[in-house]
Amino acid sequence: MTNTIIYRYDALKNFCEDAFKKLGFSPKDSEIITDVLLLSDLYGIESHGMQRLVRYHKGIEKGMIKVDAKPEIVFETPVSLVIDGHDGMGQLNSHFAMTRTIEKAQKAGVCIATVRNSNHFGIAGYYAKMASDKGYIGFAMTNSEAIMVPTFGRMAMIGSNPIAMAMPAKPYPFFFDASTTVVTRGKLEIYNKNNKPLPEGWALDKNGKGSTDAADVLKNIVAKAGGGIMPLGGEFERTGSHKGYGYGMVCEIFCSILSQGITSNRTHQDGKGGTCHGFACIDPKIFGDAQAIEEKLSAFLQELRQAPKSEGAERIYTHGEKEILAYADRMKNGIAINVHTVAEMVDFCSFVGLEVKRYLGEVDLDGIQRASSYK
Amino acid sequence: MTNTIIYRYDALKNFCEDAFKKLGFSPKDSEIITDVLLLSDLYGIESHGMQRLVRYHKGIEKGMIKVDAKPEIVFETPVSLVIDGHDGMGQLNSHFAMTRTIEKAQKAGVCIATVRNSNHFGIAGYYAKMASDKGYIGFAMTNSEAIMVPTFGRMAMIGSNPIAMAMPAKPYPFFFDASTTVVTRGKLEIYNKNNKPLPEGWALDKNGKGSTDAADVLKNIVAKAGGGIMPLGGEFERTGSHKGYGYGMVCEIFCSILSQGITSNRTHQDGKGGTCHGFACIDPKIFGDAQAIEEKLSAFLQELRQAPKSEGAERIYTHGEKEILAYADRMKNGIAINVHTVAEMVDFCSFVGLEVKRYLGEVDLDGIQRASSYK
Repeated sequence: MTNTIIYRYDALKNFCEDAFKKLGFSPKDSEIITDVLLLSDLYGIESHGMQRLVRYHKGIEKGMIKVDAKPEIVFETPVSLVIDGHDGMGQLNSHFAMTRTIEKAQKAGVCIATVRNSNHFGIAGYYAKMASDKGYIGFAMTNSEAIMVPTFGRMAMIGSNPIAMAMPAKPYPFFFDASTTVVTRGKLEIYNKNNKPLPEGWALDKNGKGSTDAADVLKNIVAKAGGGIMPLGGEFERTGSHKGYGYGMVCEIFCSILSQGITSNRTHQDGKGGTCHGFACIDPKIFGDAQAIEEKLSAFLQELRQAPKSEGAERIYTHGEKEILAYADRMKNGIAINVHTVAEMVDFCSFVGLEVKRYLGEVDLDGIQRASSYK
Repeated sequence: MTNTIIYRYDALKNFCEDAFKKLGFSPKDSEIITDVLLLSDLYGIESHGMQRLVRYHKGIEKGMIKVDAKPEIVFETPVSLVIDGHDGMGQLNSHFAMTRTIEKAQKAGVCIATVRNSNHFGIAGYYAKMASDKGYIGFAMTNSEAIMVPTFGRMAMIGSNPIAMAMPAKPYPFFFDASTTVVTRGKLEIYNKNNKPLPEGWALDKNGKGSTDAADVLKNIVAKAGGGIMPLGGEFERTGSHKGYGYGMVCEIFCSILSQGITSNRTHQDGKGGTCHGFACIDPKIFGDAQAIEEKLSAFLQELRQAPKSEGAERIYTHGEKEILAYADRMKNGIAINVHTVAEMVDFCSFVGLEVKRYLGEVDLDGIQRASSYK
């Protein structure tokens, strides 16, 4: 069983904002970063929330993430933006980029932004949601350290390369956010933390053969020794491996190719992150009556939810529904954080000089194998 | 073994153009339809080429496809188009839509079009390629008669809903064209024609359980009795079923939702097709130096092709490479057409009054179980 400690949203928000302020970010920037991280935990996407704190901290320590960097618009038209993130925090570059993308789309009807020289930006869906919260269609993508092994390959060449899309609907928006790999690296990290074997059909060993050994796969990825995660569609063309690989490429093009940044296979080298992102915002009014379009989408989503279920299934979810349910639950009942992640948060406090008890309460980590991340 | 008869490209072009002229299309329109269909056969996508002839013929006979319909722009902005296809031929509506989408993108940098009340348009990639042939990034999508069963469902609610993207690169473009189901209905039809069991992980029976019986699955689809094809990612969330379902939704939104047309689950009812499409064109110059961007993509595609192979694999393909190889082969050696499809072409000739021998040569169909499509 996974051991967890439950925290109130407000407590984690308080901790997280002060943590990033301690790392040198302004109060406003710390708030943005915290908002992105905690939406992930609230949405039940544990792999991209508090669990990432250590990696950001280490990225800053190593100089890969520059705390005082400011994103710069290096090229633009009325419908486009090219932004150089100057190795700043991914969340800040992305919040900046999506804010401007929305502004331009408000005037031109559509805008596409591409960002180079950034860092891990959290969940892609956060930025797509920025657009849908304002009544627009939003897209967000990012490349990442190579983890996807292309069909017939044995070396990771493409990132987990998520593509997110959000669009207003009632009672809740369409919110689709998914890696173009079968699963994300974060999922492998959770299996590794819990010492569980991976399901089959997820990962490849360094020879390009199926593997269920999370520790070994992660080790090989870090060492760039071969292997990685399969594209959505699995290992073989028969099950559509080349399609997941194709969506990974679509993402790569909008991130690193159009921005002329660093492709997934070359990020995270020589102390540089180099992550690239892509964003888009579309005003549904360019297709007519935005209200009628929203109603049309809402009606179709409802038809999907009400469609006949397969034997043994209780409900059909539409995209974003699980996140809405998780959000409501966690706001009411608190957010369960893996004890190993709590251990990292405790260690983090001692590193940056935050009082553990004040932020995290009385934490009993006796009998918990301490996380190795800070070794 | 599959029996095939090999035809020269020119012979099929001649047959196909005259066939559509016999059905009432103008020479120019017949040429467009033929060009779309034969590119599919030349690219090795047998399921969407000559094999579709009977279905178009029947669609016209039933009045589902209106030969004399003209696409109408019902709403537009400098960056968008909404087109009513008035139940015309999908290829003609789509060629019209993409031509105008490219024209608008040439001025505004980007344009998105959505088309309602159309019909099956052939391969999505054809229209994406129209843009990439001119130096732009092209997208094309279509909904279709519901065939994808959403995760946890047992009724097909979404079409095969392909998404295609093409972008210039050297020595050949990035050309990605894939259904968001594991496979297309056309693939099932080919297995059925060849009387072969389906691979596992493709299709569901009417109770929402895995099935390898192509005839039964196709029968249930036509009868809307339940079952269908799995989303890319298969039957379970563990392998990413919800992701393929999500990409199917992205396609549905750009086709039927934004055009306020007919969603996949309601097309092909009461004698109406109602298929909807989505198109986009992006000028890479809105991100800076188009030449440098093309070189960047070309270099990355080359890195992928040269990456280490998995044990037993000979090469890593980039998207569009197999199509380029197939095209060269078929232009040189001819196009192999399944004998059952040839039988349909022969029957077609007698129906519309074309001389078989003149178009298809001496066809020996002795011992071939005649196709039932014209029964």
